[in-house]
Amino acid sequence: MTDRAQWTDPHCPVARTTDIVGDRWSLLIVRDAFDGTRRFSQFQRNLGIAKNILTDRLRGLVEQGILEARSNEQGTRNEYVLTDRGMDLFTVIVSLRQWGERHAFSDGEPHSTLVDDSTGDPVPMLRLVNAQNIELDTANTHVHKIGQD
Amino acid sequence: MTDRAQWTDPHCPVARTTDIVGDRWSLLIVRDAFDGTRRFSQFQRNLGIAKNILTDRLRGLVEQGILEARSNEQGTRNEYVLTDRGMDLFTVIVSLRQWGERHAFSDGEPHSTLVDDSTGDPVPMLRLVNAQNIELDTANTHVHKIGQD
Repeated sequence: MTDRAQWTDPHCPVARTTDIVGDRWSLLIVRDAFDGTRRFSQFQRNLGIAKNILTDRLRGLVEQGILEARSNEQGTRNEYVLTDRGMDLFTVIVSLRQWGERHAFSDGEPHSTLVDDSTGDPVPMLRLVNAQNIELDTANTHVHKIGQD
Repeated sequence: MTDRAQWTDPHCPVARTTDIVGDRWSLLIVRDAFDGTRRFSQFQRNLGIAKNILTDRLRGLVEQGILEARSNEQGTRNEYVLTDRGMDLFTVIVSLRQWGERHAFSDGEPHSTLVDDSTGDPVPMLRLVNAQNIELDTANTHVHKIGQD
C-alpha cells in the first residue's frame, strides 16, 4: 500500500488509514463483512446503496487488500471476504460502535450490541492503558511527529 | 443528535457514528484538534484542504456537538475546541492510528507515534478484553441485532 502516489499526510498513520478506509460506505461495508455478509446483493440490501457506489467501494477495498474477491462454489458470482488486514480493522469498527452507543442514542433507544460469546454479555468498553494499567487519553499522551527529535 | 431525520441504519451504533464523523476530512480535523489545532488557518495549513470544504466540515462538527466554536481573546476570529463528546473520539482516532501503523507503512518507514507522557514510550495497542482478560475479536463475539431476541 505504501506505493500509493499521494497520501494526504504521509507520516501520519491516522491519515493513511483514513485514506484507505475513511469514508462512510467503506466502513459500513467492512462492518457488514464482519457480520458475515459476502455477496454484492446482500451488501446492497443491507446498505441501501447505489450499485455504482457499491461497485466502486468494493473495488477499492479489494485493491487496498481489505477484502478478497472469491468466486462462489458454483463459480457464478463473486463473494467478498475480509483478509487478515481487513480483519484487523475490528478495533476500528468497535471504537466507532462504542462511541455511537455512548453519544448517538437517547437513553433506552434500541440499538444493536456486540456480545461476548462466552458470557452472552455486551463487550466491555475499549480502553487504552499502559503497562501499569493507567488509562491513557489526550491528557497524558502526545503525538511525536517526524522531525521533532 | 437523535432527532436526525435520516440515519443510514438507525439501530446500528457503527452507522450512526459514521453518519456523524465518517468522512476523511472530519476525522482528520478531529485528529488535529486533539493535537491542539484551533484556528481555521491552522487546520487549512495542516490539511491542505480547500476553504469551502473546511468551512463545511467545521460547521458540521459544530452542529454535531463534536467541536465548539469560541471567539479568541481578541474577539477577532473563531477557535474550534473539542467538546467532551468530541474528546471521547480519542479511542476512534487511536484505533485508526494503530491500524495504520500496522498496515500502511513499510518496515522502518518513518511515521508519527502516540507517546505515553509518563514513560516516553509509544502507547500499547488497544485491545478489547472481557472481565477475564480474554481478548475478544470477531471469532468470539457476535452482533445482536434489534429484533433478534
